[in-house]
Amino acid sequence: MSLLKGACIIGQSGGPTSVINASAYGAIKTALESDCITKVYGASNGIKGVLDDKLIDMGMEDPTELAHMKYTPSSALGSCRYKLKDSTVDDTDYMRILEIFKKYDVRYFFYNGGNDSMDTCNKISKYMLAQGYECRIMGIPKTIDNDLAGTDHCPGYGSAAKYIATSVMEIYHDARVYDTGMITIVEAMGRNAGWLTASAALANYKGNGPDLIYLPEVPFDLEAFLEKVSEIYKKNTKCIAVVSEGIRDKDGKYISEYGADLSQSKDSFGHAQLGGLASFLANEAKKRTGAKVRGIELSLLQRCAAHSASQTDIDESFLAGKSAVEYAISGITDKMAGFERSYVDGKYVCNIKLFDLTIVANTEKKVPLEWLNSTRDGLNEKFIEYALPLIQGESQLAREDGLPRFVKLKKVIAK
Amino acid sequence: MSLLKGACIIGQSGGPTSVINASAYGAIKTALESDCITKVYGASNGIKGVLDDKLIDMGMEDPTELAHMKYTPSSALGSCRYKLKDSTVDDTDYMRILEIFKKYDVRYFFYNGGNDSMDTCNKISKYMLAQGYECRIMGIPKTIDNDLAGTDHCPGYGSAAKYIATSVMEIYHDARVYDTGMITIVEAMGRNAGWLTASAALANYKGNGPDLIYLPEVPFDLEAFLEKVSEIYKKNTKCIAVVSEGIRDKDGKYISEYGADLSQSKDSFGHAQLGGLASFLANEAKKRTGAKVRGIELSLLQRCAAHSASQTDIDESFLAGKSAVEYAISGITDKMAGFERSYVDGKYVCNIKLFDLTIVANTEKKVPLEWLNSTRDGLNEKFIEYALPLIQGESQLAREDGLPRFVKLKKVIAK
Repeated sequence: MSLLKGACIIGQSGGPTSVINASAYGAIKTALESDCITKVYGASNGIKGVLDDKLIDMGMEDPTELAHMKYTPSSALGSCRYKLKDSTVDDTDYMRILEIFKKYDVRYFFYNGGNDSMDTCNKISKYMLAQGYECRIMGIPKTIDNDLAGTDHCPGYGSAAKYIATSVMEIYHDARVYDTGMITIVEAMGRNAGWLTASAALANYKGNGPDLIYLPEVPFDLEAFLEKVSEIYKKNTKCIAVVSEGIRDKDGKYISEYGADLSQSKDSFGHAQLGGLASFLANEAKKRTGAKVRGIELSLLQRCAAHSASQTDIDESFLAGKSAVEYAISGITDKMAGFERSYVDGKYVCNIKLFDLTIVANTEKKVPLEWLNSTRDGLNEKFIEYALPLIQGESQLAREDGLPRFVKLKKVIAK
Repeated sequence: MSLLKGACIIGQSGGPTSVINASAYGAIKTALESDCITKVYGASNGIKGVLDDKLIDMGMEDPTELAHMKYTPSSALGSCRYKLKDSTVDDTDYMRILEIFKKYDVRYFFYNGGNDSMDTCNKISKYMLAQGYECRIMGIPKTIDNDLAGTDHCPGYGSAAKYIATSVMEIYHDARVYDTGMITIVEAMGRNAGWLTASAALANYKGNGPDLIYLPEVPFDLEAFLEKVSEIYKKNTKCIAVVSEGIRDKDGKYISEYGADLSQSKDSFGHAQLGGLASFLANEAKKRTGAKVRGIELSLLQRCAAHSASQTDIDESFLAGKSAVEYAISGITDKMAGFERSYVDGKYVCNIKLFDLTIVANTEKKVPLEWLNSTRDGLNEKFIEYALPLIQGESQLAREDGLPRFVKLKKVIAK
């Protein structure tokens, strides 16, 4: 191990989560306290902030104010969805990144995001190595989708799962209030991996859950779905189903597209009409049963509801950011600081484990089919055992006037 | 005042709120502890439970378990939307109610609901008086809509307002994460009164709020709206608007119907397609600006999100139920236990005040126009001053395994 002195950049990328700032704060705080790291910059809107020479001087922020970052949803530094080209095809961006790194003597780069961000990390790392520019590059995972390979789970998932399970429990009570019939369809995020949708099963574990859960891992049969809903409705006069936005039929067609077809998707200007999957399925169920129906899209709230974040998730996310910086200082590069689970005396413990960026960048982790029930419209105890530890603890978010006290950064741009 | 011994019935009616059970629990607990009240029955699904002779013996519930009712959303006893006919037109229901009251020696009737429930109370009260059957009848208000006349505010509103303001603050952070443009339209409940939608202004008060707020109290001009959104978007590349589900144009047509018209509302079976107002407006904004848009319907969650209820609202709701029982025991009848606000040393204080049921039943309280800003697309400090005390305090809801611990009633039906 060699001691490497220099500045660091921390960037955030991809879609928001309730806790991505907890990771960023873990990294920023640790970097600010380190003797090795001379300056701490936040990239304004991820890698675009590097390309645009828009770096926030994190040392100028008030430490007490900065601490609120741990509980503020979405990316406080700003995010982007910018994919670097292969450097062998076009190295313009890489040359610019190197230029900026040299300008600010950046020797540490931390990137906080999902698959694409790990890919960005990996590409920059390889380029810097090829150029002989010494720089340690670490990925810090985040995604509500929980689909990153290697790591036991992803920062952000626990909070989203907690929000979904809690909301479904509340919807369960709401939807049963009358003695008349009601069918409720709830739509959760997760285009290819069903982790978020599956978290509704945690509500079942508490006896206040949905009758049916459909993940994108299993081909969706509209007719079979309507038959099942109809059967449950006839028996109980109530039926709640939670579906993933990404459910597809056996031919791979998104069920959400069925709705768009039906409502003659284009308006007079040729624009597609927005049509929610939950509304479409609710409407189909209405046709089949005549029941009162309600379609509910959890929408953005499932990824930004910091007020109901899991404190376990917040603490683990912070730890991932902190560890990434500590490992980099100790000489590690080109890794992602992910999680490994163990049980000590039957109690869940989460430790940091390093993963190769290449593995993370190019694989997508799905819900194991053996965690589904036999009819594949629900989850079994294996999933509950997996997910339950991740949603523990209430967020210690500060409140002011009965509302969340989110961080307010000065964002002084470095010259 | 005369001492009246006998049983009581507590019923819940109308749509769910996060805290209607806090009121019911306040009434049930107080009744169970009273010497005057010999038996405490919960009406299963409101007045329908009385008509169907389906009364839950609340004395059979475990007191510790029952205490969870205070934090459980929706109506634990079940609700209904049953409107009694005028007794001079058809007194069948009234005769049946009297029969049940006599069967169980019911001398106290508490009904927990909105305008229609106060109307039910009032009608039963008048009938019993005419029949010479001694019975004390009290209304306990609830409605997220906050539209009951007389009372300063309604149990349920504070929690819904807190949820909406919190969610809009979180959406604010989410919607600004990229440096690309984005227009977000959030739809809140409240068909005729804009109290719920107005509560988004509390997010503004914290500096994380919407650019525009549209209440049903003000005629909505689609063209003017799109111009304003377009202007803000051009200036800031972000625009968030919160609209009431009940906004209407100057001719009184619901804007939500515009969307239904556009998407050729009927499908091949002749059923109306469900079309969200938020999606419609977002789509129109997209056509006008080319921006990325998102329509978010807060849906059921705004009325049942007990996990983010206001403890002030919970405590006040409990007090309303408790006071209704205490006043009835002391000899009062035919009143609603509402709220009166005062300020002691500048500090908000909420006291119980009794209101005539007739006043409450037939009037609808709207947001005063002088609480809107000059352009009528936002609220001013008068609204903030009114609403802020109502959202204070975090719910002391018990948790189990990281999820809410809601009440589980045995519901033993009385014979």
